[in-house]
Amino acid sequence: MFKRVLIANRGEIAVRIIRALREMQIESVAVYSTADRDSLFVKLADIAVCIGGPQPKDSYLNIQNIVSAAVLSGADAIHPGFGFLSENAEFARVCAECGVVFIGPKEATIELMGNKSNARNTMKAHGIPVIPGSDEAITSIDQALALADKIDYPIMLKAAAGGGGKGIRVIKDRKDLMKKFPAAQRETELSFDDQSMYIEKIIEEPKHVEVQIMRDCFGNVLAFPERDCSLQRSHQKMVEESPCSVIDQSERDYLLSVARKAADTIDYLNTGTFEFLMDKQHHFYFMEMNTRLQVEHPITEMVTGIDLVKMQISVAAGEKLGLTQANIHIHGTAIECRINSEDPVHNFLPQAGRIKSLHFPLGCPGARVDSGVDSGSTISPFYDSMIAKLIAHGPTRQEALAIMDRMLSEMSIEGVTTNIKFQQALMHSPAVVSGNATTDYIEDDFLPTWIDHLAEEKINDLV
Amino acid sequence: MFKRVLIANRGEIAVRIIRALREMQIESVAVYSTADRDSLFVKLADIAVCIGGPQPKDSYLNIQNIVSAAVLSGADAIHPGFGFLSENAEFARVCAECGVVFIGPKEATIELMGNKSNARNTMKAHGIPVIPGSDEAITSIDQALALADKIDYPIMLKAAAGGGGKGIRVIKDRKDLMKKFPAAQRETELSFDDQSMYIEKIIEEPKHVEVQIMRDCFGNVLAFPERDCSLQRSHQKMVEESPCSVIDQSERDYLLSVARKAADTIDYLNTGTFEFLMDKQHHFYFMEMNTRLQVEHPITEMVTGIDLVKMQISVAAGEKLGLTQANIHIHGTAIECRINSEDPVHNFLPQAGRIKSLHFPLGCPGARVDSGVDSGSTISPFYDSMIAKLIAHGPTRQEALAIMDRMLSEMSIEGVTTNIKFQQALMHSPAVVSGNATTDYIEDDFLPTWIDHLAEEKINDLV
Repeated sequence: MFKRVLIANRGEIAVRIIRALREMQIESVAVYSTADRDSLFVKLADIAVCIGGPQPKDSYLNIQNIVSAAVLSGADAIHPGFGFLSENAEFARVCAECGVVFIGPKEATIELMGNKSNARNTMKAHGIPVIPGSDEAITSIDQALALADKIDYPIMLKAAAGGGGKGIRVIKDRKDLMKKFPAAQRETELSFDDQSMYIEKIIEEPKHVEVQIMRDCFGNVLAFPERDCSLQRSHQKMVEESPCSVIDQSERDYLLSVARKAADTIDYLNTGTFEFLMDKQHHFYFMEMNTRLQVEHPITEMVTGIDLVKMQISVAAGEKLGLTQANIHIHGTAIECRINSEDPVHNFLPQAGRIKSLHFPLGCPGARVDSGVDSGSTISPFYDSMIAKLIAHGPTRQEALAIMDRMLSEMSIEGVTTNIKFQQALMHSPAVVSGNATTDYIEDDFLPTWIDHLAEEKINDLV
Repeated sequence: MFKRVLIANRGEIAVRIIRALREMQIESVAVYSTADRDSLFVKLADIAVCIGGPQPKDSYLNIQNIVSAAVLSGADAIHPGFGFLSENAEFARVCAECGVVFIGPKEATIELMGNKSNARNTMKAHGIPVIPGSDEAITSIDQALALADKIDYPIMLKAAAGGGGKGIRVIKDRKDLMKKFPAAQRETELSFDDQSMYIEKIIEEPKHVEVQIMRDCFGNVLAFPERDCSLQRSHQKMVEESPCSVIDQSERDYLLSVARKAADTIDYLNTGTFEFLMDKQHHFYFMEMNTRLQVEHPITEMVTGIDLVKMQISVAAGEKLGLTQANIHIHGTAIECRINSEDPVHNFLPQAGRIKSLHFPLGCPGARVDSGVDSGSTISPFYDSMIAKLIAHGPTRQEALAIMDRMLSEMSIEGVTTNIKFQQALMHSPAVVSGNATTDYIEDDFLPTWIDHLAEEKINDLV
């Protein structure tokens, strides 16, 4: 087993990984930017190394500085977390070259699945259902128009190289495509240094359903119960739950077997997630793969009782999976709400500042809080606004929702505006209570109603 | 179901109950003393009523004030928590008279089991093994000497009427009994307004093993997996775990069937715990019953996935238990460490003061923190020193211990001395690692070694 592991990340996920390492009696090395000097993850790590300035490119995206810190601090392995370099094949390659284990899949797998067109083609070639769309990278408007005419509108335009909602546009017709293509491609190039675009047919009012898998170097594979991540805004997940309440056991068996087969097909190593869209007839279409741990992994941990971060570390160290698919059971329902430092009333504008006081809704079985901040922490403007995650786990979906409602109503943060009230209102909305929300629900239905409701309240307060 | 429930308690357990109520959509009424005005439980409750001065007799033991607050605030029921009035039959009677449901057993049951001699005689009459000891209350030194001569020394002298370690003395011989009896009896009278004593034979190097049960008003009964509470100091539990690692399944089946039978025998209502001593040959002896929720209930919740406080409330509202004994399964091992504001180095002297900063070891599956305090909270000198509980739940005992070790090493409190370092050292001690600790372990073995070790460290620091 590793003696010392470097975490090439920050905030909540860095804290999460440090805790797992400590429970495995492995030393942790935090790397941090000058903006994160006083962050919780820096305090909790056994060793902390400053690797550069606040801009991500100077620190958390700086491969050379990070790998140097690993070598100099004597780390055996690097855990990339999510975001930043977690899906960067080059980073995995440099780690390997420097004799540091990258806790994740092989460089070639990251490369293959990181390109959406290649990923889709690979899955299609092995009989896994995919969304009708481009079989090769699209680099010009003419190519885009030709394909779109063939598969018919509405279509989705995406960056071929990356995730995180960058470069994504919904296109309703020919004219719309001509208008939006240039800016989307510019955004793509700026974000990923690659101007390849990807087009796919829009599945109307779908659910986003995903399956996380874990595969060891002996070819043993586990597929975990699916997550429903339909509650999104601007293609960013806001709330996730597991299992999906509208999927039955035979659909689940099918979906998990598809994920297992897909993982075998690409000789996958460590953890990753196959994302699917599910249409109204419950057909599943492979969308993309995240070749890393995901933000929403805790809900899977709660329903299965498995620590996925520890399992990742064991698998990366060459250990054989101690469980088989028959050991994976679903206990109740788990729901996660992401707590972001953002202002939902003003277009979810990210908020920076100092947390003056903080109260976490702990206690009771089934209430879990994963946080990157503490009372007194500073939220920096340089990074993602996700600062904590509330996870509620109950014997039934209804009980899990009641626990989450209690947690949201009890949680308080002073000093920074957050999305807590938004999440609380969302939890009470009809589509969430029924479990029928689709990926367009927040933006098309919930948000306009909620904003109107807030405005009405304000007027009433004035009267 | 109840609409509004009053919590006749304070601190950690009041917070725990308020959270359960909120998850059940029931309003909570906190009652508080003037010393607790700014406490977390007062802030979290829907309604808060001041019921008197800081001395327990003026507030948390003041039956009239509490029941008045319940009636005036429109509470349907009262949850007594643990300690204070939770095992006071008079309190249960006054609640009933005023039309407020007491969330606990019937007055007569509290009365019966609250007197240790009566409890023992009742259990003995129904064929449940008991420790050799007094069959009736002992009020004079002559009675005590006569019985002790009969059952032979060493013996234990206890208050017949109450718990919490009050009036308890270990007596090694005749001379020792004559010397210690008067003070123990005085202490008993002061604590419980009753000078009845109780004598029992000492089981040498026993384990303290207990079984919590839940029984509804239809006579359905559940017995939960046993807890090992052998880690005690001055008869106060410090660490608890479930299940007991040295008990096998046939012993467990026997113990749980004894507890179920005992609960039926006394027509028990709601939750309670049968405490047993287990000798080296794994014989079990009924010791006493706690007719209330216990401090250590969270470990049972973690291994069974059941919220025992919610279940208590449902049963008190007349609902039928939704589970049968066949639904009770053990998932892994859970361990609880009590975090007390006390100074282990100076004879565990309780500490009062203001918490300047506080960091809780959250995150990761299996880490639970039940706390009555927050950053900025004041620890009052008037009440019990237990301020929080760390609960670690892992697939195996070894993993649970590793999670607890991580939690203890991560937790920090500034402003008040606590027993965190003591608990951390205890978790690493050989008898705890092996699971073989008996009730005398902390005082006879661990504590002297630890104090010596600290002294050595201090000398080394000076050199």
